[in-house]
Amino acid sequence: MSTGTSKTGTTTQVHETSGGTVLREGAFGNARGLVCRECGATQPLGPHYACLECFGPLEIAYDFPEVTREQIEAGPRNIWRYKALLPVPDDIESSPNTEPGFTRLLWAENLGRELGITTLWVKDDSTNPTNSFKDRVVACALSAAVEFGSKVFACPSTGNLANAVAAAGARAGIKTVVFIPSNLEHPKQVNSAIFTDSLVAVEGNYDDVNRLASEIAGEEDGWAFVNVNVRPFYAEGSKTLGYEIAEQLGWRLPDQIVIPVASGSQLTKVDKAFQELIKLGLVEDKPYRVFGAQAEGCGPVATAFKAGVDAIRPVKPDTIAKSLAIGNPADGIYVLDIARRTSGAVEEVDDDAIRDAIVLLARTEGIFTETAGGTTVAVLKKLVETGQLDPDLETVVINTGHGLKTLDAVSGRVAPAATIAPTYDAFAASGIV
Amino acid sequence: MSTGTSKTGTTTQVHETSGGTVLREGAFGNARGLVCRECGATQPLGPHYACLECFGPLEIAYDFPEVTREQIEAGPRNIWRYKALLPVPDDIESSPNTEPGFTRLLWAENLGRELGITTLWVKDDSTNPTNSFKDRVVACALSAAVEFGSKVFACPSTGNLANAVAAAGARAGIKTVVFIPSNLEHPKQVNSAIFTDSLVAVEGNYDDVNRLASEIAGEEDGWAFVNVNVRPFYAEGSKTLGYEIAEQLGWRLPDQIVIPVASGSQLTKVDKAFQELIKLGLVEDKPYRVFGAQAEGCGPVATAFKAGVDAIRPVKPDTIAKSLAIGNPADGIYVLDIARRTSGAVEEVDDDAIRDAIVLLARTEGIFTETAGGTTVAVLKKLVETGQLDPDLETVVINTGHGLKTLDAVSGRVAPAATIAPTYDAFAASGIV
Ligand SMILES: Cc1ncc(COP(=O)(O)O)c(C=O)c1O
Ligand SMILES: Cc1ncc(COP(=O)(O)O)c(C=O)c1O
Ligand SMILES: [Zn+2]
Ligand SMILES: [Zn+2]
Repeated sequence: MSTGTSKTGTTTQVHETSGGTVLREGAFGNARGLVCRECGATQPLGPHYACLECFGPLEIAYDFPEVTREQIEAGPRNIWRYKALLPVPDDIESSPNTEPGFTRLLWAENLGRELGITTLWVKDDSTNPTNSFKDRVVACALSAAVEFGSKVFACPSTGNLANAVAAAGARAGIKTVVFIPSNLEHPKQVNSAIFTDSLVAVEGNYDDVNRLASEIAGEEDGWAFVNVNVRPFYAEGSKTLGYEIAEQLGWRLPDQIVIPVASGSQLTKVDKAFQELIKLGLVEDKPYRVFGAQAEGCGPVATAFKAGVDAIRPVKPDTIAKSLAIGNPADGIYVLDIARRTSGAVEEVDDDAIRDAIVLLARTEGIFTETAGGTTVAVLKKLVETGQLDPDLETVVINTGHGLKTLDAVSGRVAPAATIAPTYDAFAASGIV
Repeated sequence: MSTGTSKTGTTTQVHETSGGTVLREGAFGNARGLVCRECGATQPLGPHYACLECFGPLEIAYDFPEVTREQIEAGPRNIWRYKALLPVPDDIESSPNTEPGFTRLLWAENLGRELGITTLWVKDDSTNPTNSFKDRVVACALSAAVEFGSKVFACPSTGNLANAVAAAGARAGIKTVVFIPSNLEHPKQVNSAIFTDSLVAVEGNYDDVNRLASEIAGEEDGWAFVNVNVRPFYAEGSKTLGYEIAEQLGWRLPDQIVIPVASGSQLTKVDKAFQELIKLGLVEDKPYRVFGAQAEGCGPVATAFKAGVDAIRPVKPDTIAKSLAIGNPADGIYVLDIARRTSGAVEEVDDDAIRDAIVLLARTEGIFTETAGGTTVAVLKKLVETGQLDPDLETVVINTGHGLKTLDAVSGRVAPAATIAPTYDAFAASGIV
């Protein structure tokens, strides 16, 4: 598979923005370059994330070959079945990675009945390798970091990303350094520290941690911060959620989809995935509506949506949905665009509704979600109740994380019904049944 | 799909051991009957688990049709791809279930290097719907319970089974009652209580809970205790671990396999799966060695193996590996048979070795396992060190559960490296890199 070019350039070389970058042939598959989402200026592929002209965010542009359903279906049962649509080399499966994706799409008849929705599906990303959708984006970022010859694989994180980066780095044998808010849930801390000896707790909220990461990225050479300087490559990983949903529905787009919003990256990439599938002729072109879900304690995008404005005003987060607690969301304005373009919405719910929804999803479908998923299901409920979502159209809701990571959110709500002595008489007297 | 027969018989009918049982045509697929593992006596299919002749344990016998690799590969990406080899109806996918299985088989180059094993694979069952292999067995038990018209879906559990039963029951809309030892890890309690309002904590250890369950099964009508009166159906689910490993290796058996042992059911069924694949011509016949893993604090099978005796002397468990803490293992003697027949072994390790192995697996492969997986990896290490396992033969180790459920086992060992203020200077001064 090797083309004779060395797989890893030196750090100095890959940090040059033009000409000098040493990348192996095909390092990014069908990706053609980086393009500014604001002004459309282009740049060669490299560890860049801001437009040289206007400082706007960059995203990956492709020259796609013909891609068929059969090719995809013959691929591995993980996100690499879509490698032709991602900025990764053709031999990506042979680099050690966590092999995320191709998670369950469950028909949620019970939850649908409860909410009054005729056809409802749950895309359950809690069964990914580190139990959140972040394994998808991290796998793409890891590929880029390896191709750039990065020496440190890093991130600022609200928790799930930390787990995914630390695990993927361990498996790939690359040094990881992971930054989290010091008040993060205990399970998410252990679930990072188990993989890396460089977990760094930062006194502050996520936005503080994120600022620190940008500073370090600017000062240090050879650090790949997955969601900062490798962000364009990272973000593409979320497209696989969109691809999978379409493939699992039998190569068809849903009518409506509800997606949690922190930075807003996932939502924008699921939309990008749907658009690509249409353009590639892999699914029929049809209208679909995209809905964003936030917590009231951190709902800057929902607030802007309801106010009908374009600018997003940063907030100081205060919610149990810590994984969604990004007060200054990088992709918030694109979320607004998409919700408006597709006749969707961005809604928010309070912490009690989030807790209720965690229990509701568990009791109806046997899925234990974290606060982010509670937020998304609670928003789905609210969208139906307020008439914003059509209950007779086919709807998908994404569960992006696992309840074992946010146990405290519900441990006050659920408990054993009884504690009894180990005898039939004690059981019979307990009134359990 | 319906054959005209009612799907559910009444409780009274299905409790009859002969003639009267009303089962729909094809309710158990290619299963032909129940056969005693001790005396070989047969019985019709039904909610029975003990031989009428000798009280020996019953298992499922089949009349397999021709089954091809292509048929299996064309099936769903979960255990139902093997439905022709399981006691389930042909339309099993259309009954609401958790769709477990087809989990990752990861090539563990780093762990192999660390342990001195040339070719090592980890079968990672921690990414199942409720994060342990128990989702497999429960899915098969659920199918049987539904076919028998059971009104309660129940189990005694060391924790993971409770999670799986409660979740599967919620999704299927069947009443669940779940019994656990009252000292069970907190995450495993919440991870059951979230799905059911009938979680019952029992003052005692697993063996006490199990005895209570047998008593209730004897007294109450219409209760399907998955691992008691539905055990023959339940146990077959573990065969899918063996099928998947063979399929994922490219329709080939490994040379050696290391499997945790609590009741011993999983180990015996993986061996059964390998034997079936050979008989069906789906893999080449070849010798393979089966190794069992226990914790020293509950190692009755390992003790018997080392002593070279056939009888297993029950113990009172005292180990952090609570999911393996069955002091009186129902299938222990069959584990001994298999280990001896295949030139394998049953080994045990202490709690410190279990903790070390949890960290080792995380740091080398990015997999966070629970104490059961720590036990299995630690035993693998010990088997190499003591020359019982050949490091040059292809080896598979099964990770059956998730570290988020046994956080306390390692939370004293791993932690953030530093807590810092959100500034570059604080970072630079921290000495992290
Ligand atoms: C579980 C979970 N869901 C959703 C999100 C939202 O992701 P995004 O930043 O792409 O909007 C996150 C982000 O951390 C998350 O952890
Ligand atoms: C994680 C885990 N691994 C392995 C086992 C062993 O299962 P068996 O009883 O089939 O030996 C159990 C049983 O509870 C378990 O929870
Ligand atoms: Zn620009
Ligand atoms: Zn018998």
